[in-house]
Amino acid sequence: MKRRQRGEDPHIEFEPLGRGCDSALGSSLLEAAREAGVGLVALCGGQGRCGRCKVQVISGAVSPLSVPEREFLSEKELALGFRLACQVRVCGDIKVLVPLESLTAAQRMQVEGLELPVPVEPAVVAYDLHLPPPTLEDLRSDGSRLQARLAEEYALADLSFDFELLRRLPDLLRGNEWSGSVALRGREVIGFLPQGREPLGLAIDLGTTKIAGYLVNLATGQLLAAKGVLNPQIRYGEDVMSRISYAMKEGATRLQEAVVGAFNDLAQALCDECEMEVDQILEAVVVGNTAMHHLFLGLPVAQLGLAPYVPAVSEALDIKARDVGLSIAPGGYLHLLPNIAGFVGADHVAMLLATGIHEAEQPTLGLDIGTNTEITLSVGGRLLSCSCASGPAFEGAHIKDGMRAASGAIERLRIVSSQVEYQTIGDLPPVGLCGSGVLDAVAELLRLGIVDEKGAMRDHPRVRRADRGKEFVLVEERESGLDREIVITRRDIGEIQLAKGAVRAGINILLSEAGLTDLDLEEVIIAGAFGNYIGIESGMAIGMLPPLPPERFKQVGNAAGMGAKIALISKKMRAQAAQIARRVEYVELTNHASFAEEFTRSMRLGPAR
Amino acid sequence: MKRRQRGEDPHIEFEPLGRGCDSALGSSLLEAAREAGVGLVALCGGQGRCGRCKVQVISGAVSPLSVPEREFLSEKELALGFRLACQVRVCGDIKVLVPLESLTAAQRMQVEGLELPVPVEPAVVAYDLHLPPPTLEDLRSDGSRLQARLAEEYALADLSFDFELLRRLPDLLRGNEWSGSVALRGREVIGFLPQGREPLGLAIDLGTTKIAGYLVNLATGQLLAAKGVLNPQIRYGEDVMSRISYAMKEGATRLQEAVVGAFNDLAQALCDECEMEVDQILEAVVVGNTAMHHLFLGLPVAQLGLAPYVPAVSEALDIKARDVGLSIAPGGYLHLLPNIAGFVGADHVAMLLATGIHEAEQPTLGLDIGTNTEITLSVGGRLLSCSCASGPAFEGAHIKDGMRAASGAIERLRIVSSQVEYQTIGDLPPVGLCGSGVLDAVAELLRLGIVDEKGAMRDHPRVRRADRGKEFVLVEERESGLDREIVITRRDIGEIQLAKGAVRAGINILLSEAGLTDLDLEEVIIAGAFGNYIGIESGMAIGMLPPLPPERFKQVGNAAGMGAKIALISKKMRAQAAQIARRVEYVELTNHASFAEEFTRSMRLGPAR
Repeated sequence: MKRRQRGEDPHIEFEPLGRGCDSALGSSLLEAAREAGVGLVALCGGQGRCGRCKVQVISGAVSPLSVPEREFLSEKELALGFRLACQVRVCGDIKVLVPLESLTAAQRMQVEGLELPVPVEPAVVAYDLHLPPPTLEDLRSDGSRLQARLAEEYALADLSFDFELLRRLPDLLRGNEWSGSVALRGREVIGFLPQGREPLGLAIDLGTTKIAGYLVNLATGQLLAAKGVLNPQIRYGEDVMSRISYAMKEGATRLQEAVVGAFNDLAQALCDECEMEVDQILEAVVVGNTAMHHLFLGLPVAQLGLAPYVPAVSEALDIKARDVGLSIAPGGYLHLLPNIAGFVGADHVAMLLATGIHEAEQPTLGLDIGTNTEITLSVGGRLLSCSCASGPAFEGAHIKDGMRAASGAIERLRIVSSQVEYQTIGDLPPVGLCGSGVLDAVAELLRLGIVDEKGAMRDHPRVRRADRGKEFVLVEERESGLDREIVITRRDIGEIQLAKGAVRAGINILLSEAGLTDLDLEEVIIAGAFGNYIGIESGMAIGMLPPLPPERFKQVGNAAGMGAKIALISKKMRAQAAQIARRVEYVELTNHASFAEEFTRSMRLGPAR
Repeated sequence: MKRRQRGEDPHIEFEPLGRGCDSALGSSLLEAAREAGVGLVALCGGQGRCGRCKVQVISGAVSPLSVPEREFLSEKELALGFRLACQVRVCGDIKVLVPLESLTAAQRMQVEGLELPVPVEPAVVAYDLHLPPPTLEDLRSDGSRLQARLAEEYALADLSFDFELLRRLPDLLRGNEWSGSVALRGREVIGFLPQGREPLGLAIDLGTTKIAGYLVNLATGQLLAAKGVLNPQIRYGEDVMSRISYAMKEGATRLQEAVVGAFNDLAQALCDECEMEVDQILEAVVVGNTAMHHLFLGLPVAQLGLAPYVPAVSEALDIKARDVGLSIAPGGYLHLLPNIAGFVGADHVAMLLATGIHEAEQPTLGLDIGTNTEITLSVGGRLLSCSCASGPAFEGAHIKDGMRAASGAIERLRIVSSQVEYQTIGDLPPVGLCGSGVLDAVAELLRLGIVDEKGAMRDHPRVRRADRGKEFVLVEERESGLDREIVITRRDIGEIQLAKGAVRAGINILLSEAGLTDLDLEEVIIAGAFGNYIGIESGMAIGMLPPLPPERFKQVGNAAGMGAKIALISKKMRAQAAQIARRVEYVELTNHASFAEEFTRSMRLGPAR
């Protein structure tokens, strides 16, 4: 915090984003946040009516608690310094911690993994060197010269060279006056970096829908840039099964090329952002579900698409990036975390790794919610995992006015006296609903009795009959960013019932395998693009999530991507990932005696009972 | 030897070729050899006048010694059972050992390396397996399933998979009813062989002019097929330096593609010959001089073509065959023996390995004679090596009527009372002289005083004046396979002077470095395509070889190829090759104080004095 001169405006700092601004005495923290470029959720527009703009005041002079704050914040939260940003008036310099759930979607990804909570001990290490050039008296080959220096200076012996590096080494050495740093992976020399160029790593979470990439300095572990793009395989099928079908019919080459192309573009964009070269990227770690993993690598998927759904490989892999067409350093490596089963992949292993669920001492549930939802129950040293086909509704697909979590999507909403209050991504006029918005809508309609537990819609001033059944008008045409209303339909509610039914059935089966019930869960960790944005209350209200005190839930964002980053900078954590994959007891739901019954029962809307 | 019935013709066996025939009592061994398809050198046509058809009778009933045999064979040779094949009459079943030097060029290659004198301990080992197929109760991935079986049955653990194998594994397992053998290289699973398919290896000696390939059964070490082809890079330059120049001007891609294409054709042809599949080849070992090594691998050669002539790499390399475009098993490996210096390459290391020169207890000289001649002197635990640019004359190039050692080439000759007696390859009408023929011609002209020690030609009935100086007519038009005479010119003799001068200077400098003279040499081992065919006496007569008793010379044929084969089947010998490369003290001649003087002096024709 900078030293404030008398008469200057107080300085407000927002962590963990590291953003700040000077703000006039008496202005609200919400206003300060806007000025600092920190996007806080505020459904009611800052009137203290929605209780969403929770922040934790770490230090500094603020106004006393207001009535709305006493209403929305629990005793525990108040004790910890939680406040509603719209209610707090600035009385001096303030330091604020913004919890993930108060951030708008656009900003959550930036926050994720700003801290990498492991010691930096990457597989690839760079060593600075200066070599004596060859002379008629010193005719050693470039390779021998380099090895000798590494032995002298760093006591490294028995080294081998990556072949593509060897092809470039003579020119690299001569073009850089015999100075630079050489990158080793184990005992293999895989790269040469001109002076001043740091070794970089790339972590990628390859989702069925989205790809998240993270550029990391391998020497320091520092995150340099992050970026998300759509998985271009979407044009070959929205979900895993349709892509496997496509590959079985048409061959997998296009799918493989599409994703590799996206990775290469992503690597280039991330490097451009911080003025680095893709040649500096010496290792990439990729996590994804098993089908994405196989399609990316060009491994056959036929056996994944047919019972008993067996992966080609489940072990962690270390391969040359060039073998799959990845354009990083020519000698660079690609590490893939292990898969667990046909439908529980390396992304879930990464999620467990990042959240530490596998080390939980109390019964803990981990959910990675997406088109496919992976669930792990950690209890008494056991790790029980399953996968359920929750479908694309949570991604905003198969929903009449659904959309991905992009600008203008309603990400949160509530209904107050028949008025719908909402928050859109980027604060733009609404153009649709993303998954979390749909979930809120269903929960609100259920709470108000407009929808019953079977999903049927009763009459209401905002309910109308359309061609394909009833629908509830969420946004009038005049407010909408489209030239029509935004609605949620009976069918949309049905889609959510299917999705939440699948997830809930999975949770129930894991709990019953372990002889537990909802209330035994000490912690529920929710990860994944969608899981990150949802309202926990809405999830509980419709019965997708177990009815537990809110503080037992933790939304951790893209934990799979975080796990990939952790594995990128820590060999120890890679070893731990292998242990996790071996420890997991996989429960195949399609094959499970009580799945059909659980699924049917779980489609009912309403809190679990 | 088969059991002979009374009245049947005696059976003659020729080793080490393993060929035999039945031959009438009283016929000559030379006739029997022809019938058995064994090509013996016989300049005089079997009249007992040239003494070249020496064979060793191991057992059996033969006629007594003739007068010519007493003339041509030393006491030592007679004691060992050496005879002239044209003089021996068949008196019963006979077993004969044919020394390499008595064989015609066409047959020598077949003999080389029939025996691989090392225990079979290859880098790639295949393990038979039968796997239980997956079921709903056993959902392990293909990779885990395979690993588990290898652990159970062969106690192999901590394995990794080659990536290209992984891409094929699911189909291979399902297409072969989960049975076959898997090939491991160290702890890496690199191949799968359907039942009944043996693991194969490919050894290649990549010469500047010729490529020799050997297909070997990796499980038994047995040589299955051998084949020689021309190096297609010849179109980009005849010698190493011209190819380096080409690569520096035009890029090395074409050179690399040409040689890889030749390797792939060679592998296919070798496999076709014994009804194998190239996919069975799990490892290739390639040896060549440093420039060939670099051009094959696509390593830069600019620094090899300019002083101080430094290789990009001299260490042994293990790379995926696919990384250089070699079409063997998709997961197959390529091993390259270490290089010593810019102009002493892995082929020379292989030659030392195959001949054991590095372990010699007495002063031993090893020569690998070709366009570039590598020389090693082994003395008192030291290995001194140099390389001399002997030029293409020994390959028959830059010689007016010179040609490669192909059909119709005069490979040996002598001049008896102004008549030229010769042996051609394939016994066809002569169309030119290959290197050994040129060497014989120079030696004979020198012996008869037709050429003096400066290379000048005096007048003689067969000497005539042509546009570009004097020439000696070796073959009259009527005997020639061309429509003109075959000659050797003053200029040709000059080329041989340059070549032999370079070799001799190299030998002298190594000897003086070690404080030795010619007569200290206990053994001289001559390898290489050309070295294999030359007349030792001719080599001594012109002064290229040290004047030593003939039994101190040993012609070992393509020892580089033999070394490649040995390295292919023995990990221990690979390690020994690395030691050899490290032990060698390289002497750079172009840089050496007395080289120019030695070279000038060594151009003189006549026995060393």
